[in-house]
Amino acid sequence: MSSSPLIWVDGEPAQALPLPDRGLDFGDGLFETLLVRQGVPLFLPLHMERLAAGVDLLSFPDCIDAAKAQLSHSAARLSDLDWAAMRLTLTRGSAPRGYAAPLEAMPRIVITAAGLAADRSQQAAPLHLGWADLRWSSQPHLAGIKHLNRLEQVLVANQARDSHWDDAVVLDQQGNVCSLSAGNLFLLESGRLLTPSLETCGIAGTRRRLVLEQLAPALGVAVEQAHISPEQLLEADAVICCNSIRGLQAVASLGDRSWTNFSMCEALHQRYVDAMAC
Amino acid sequence: MSSSPLIWVDGEPAQALPLPDRGLDFGDGLFETLLVRQGVPLFLPLHMERLAAGVDLLSFPDCIDAAKAQLSHSAARLSDLDWAAMRLTLTRGSAPRGYAAPLEAMPRIVITAAGLAADRSQQAAPLHLGWADLRWSSQPHLAGIKHLNRLEQVLVANQARDSHWDDAVVLDQQGNVCSLSAGNLFLLESGRLLTPSLETCGIAGTRRRLVLEQLAPALGVAVEQAHISPEQLLEADAVICCNSIRGLQAVASLGDRSWTNFSMCEALHQRYVDAMAC
Repeated sequence: MSSSPLIWVDGEPAQALPLPDRGLDFGDGLFETLLVRQGVPLFLPLHMERLAAGVDLLSFPDCIDAAKAQLSHSAARLSDLDWAAMRLTLTRGSAPRGYAAPLEAMPRIVITAAGLAADRSQQAAPLHLGWADLRWSSQPHLAGIKHLNRLEQVLVANQARDSHWDDAVVLDQQGNVCSLSAGNLFLLESGRLLTPSLETCGIAGTRRRLVLEQLAPALGVAVEQAHISPEQLLEADAVICCNSIRGLQAVASLGDRSWTNFSMCEALHQRYVDAMAC
Repeated sequence: MSSSPLIWVDGEPAQALPLPDRGLDFGDGLFETLLVRQGVPLFLPLHMERLAAGVDLLSFPDCIDAAKAQLSHSAARLSDLDWAAMRLTLTRGSAPRGYAAPLEAMPRIVITAAGLAADRSQQAAPLHLGWADLRWSSQPHLAGIKHLNRLEQVLVANQARDSHWDDAVVLDQQGNVCSLSAGNLFLLESGRLLTPSLETCGIAGTRRRLVLEQLAPALGVAVEQAHISPEQLLEADAVICCNSIRGLQAVASLGDRSWTNFSMCEALHQRYVDAMAC
């Protein structure tokens, strides 16, 4: 499989998006990035539940069943690949000029897929992080959902790239720790795990939910959502990131601070691999 | 001309956007909405200067000359129309998966155009407004530029539509007045004009700049950017909106408050029509 992605629009192989489209015009849409093993999207219910929450919040017509059907159809084409990344994008479709959504919107479903070289059941290397200059903007109404307005993530990822970091830690407008540009954070403190509470910004990651509801409880480790200051993050015994494609990754350094005990991340990763097999 | 828009992508007539595209994926791009009279885009330098500020802020390769050339080429096709609206969308183009922008990005230029029925040199009817439930998120780094992340505008415009308002007044996170979903605001207070200062949110409208730098000074009216409370807006002697397509419009009502003296708006509109002819 070449590095150029496979693409489907509304269930048909395609090279282009019909115009006009409100996803392009305003970011009026949602997306999910799924890890696919031998043609099977992993943790599909977690992705579909978050997508459904977004569909509800943005008052899209119900299109979750169609999205699931098209995902399955496209994923089946990837069965020869050990690992692939699929992106499902849902837009509010075509409309005349203007911000207000048409009442009779016809959502459009765009799926792209590309093979992944690395074995995603192996734990990825620990990350070297920096602090982002930008803070996520505060918008409680949109916090948690994975909508298409991601220019802030682009700016943070560009800073990380220019700084030769793997990613950057981003604060919220109150100065608390929120997330990476592409991943959620957990910190280990006195034997328990804490993760930012995402009330005003951030994306409620599928792997974050998995750690909260399944992986940490399976290890008998207490886990909580909390407000976390930058100082608290630096004083943590360990920091762990999660992301749908990269899974669970330890943090090796953040600025001048470094960590060397990755045992909690390794234990969570083992539970993650077990959960993948279910 | 039918109501379906004319579309060009990278200078060629088109019906679709090549995929993948970072404009769709992340809203990684900018746009301008231009009023076109008989094939001539009006106030083009104001639009191109704002676009250039966005290109600079987002670290796009320089593509302003190409955008201008394609705008002129497309606008010339509209010479049979008295009035048309054109939208110029600039995206960071195709890239592999991931938020970080490729260093060798090739921006894509999408232009759509549609005829307008109303004579845009005539003053549009006064507006009936409400208060938006949503507040604009605070992001000083992106304030002012017209990027593609406009989901908040969609949500506000949807509330206005559902409430049978022409548009809604939106506050910033500090509780000060910022703008409409699609337009900037001026208020008349003790003979001078005030407009929100857009330090943390909002779009620096081309017609707002025209009022600030040209139309108000031509009338000998003092004009200032300021922090404006909701109470101050309600106590104003008049409220005026501006937008690239609708021009200058008086506000007739905002919730229970109504205004009947539109003389300042009429005077500014007359200067606006004069400026159109230049």
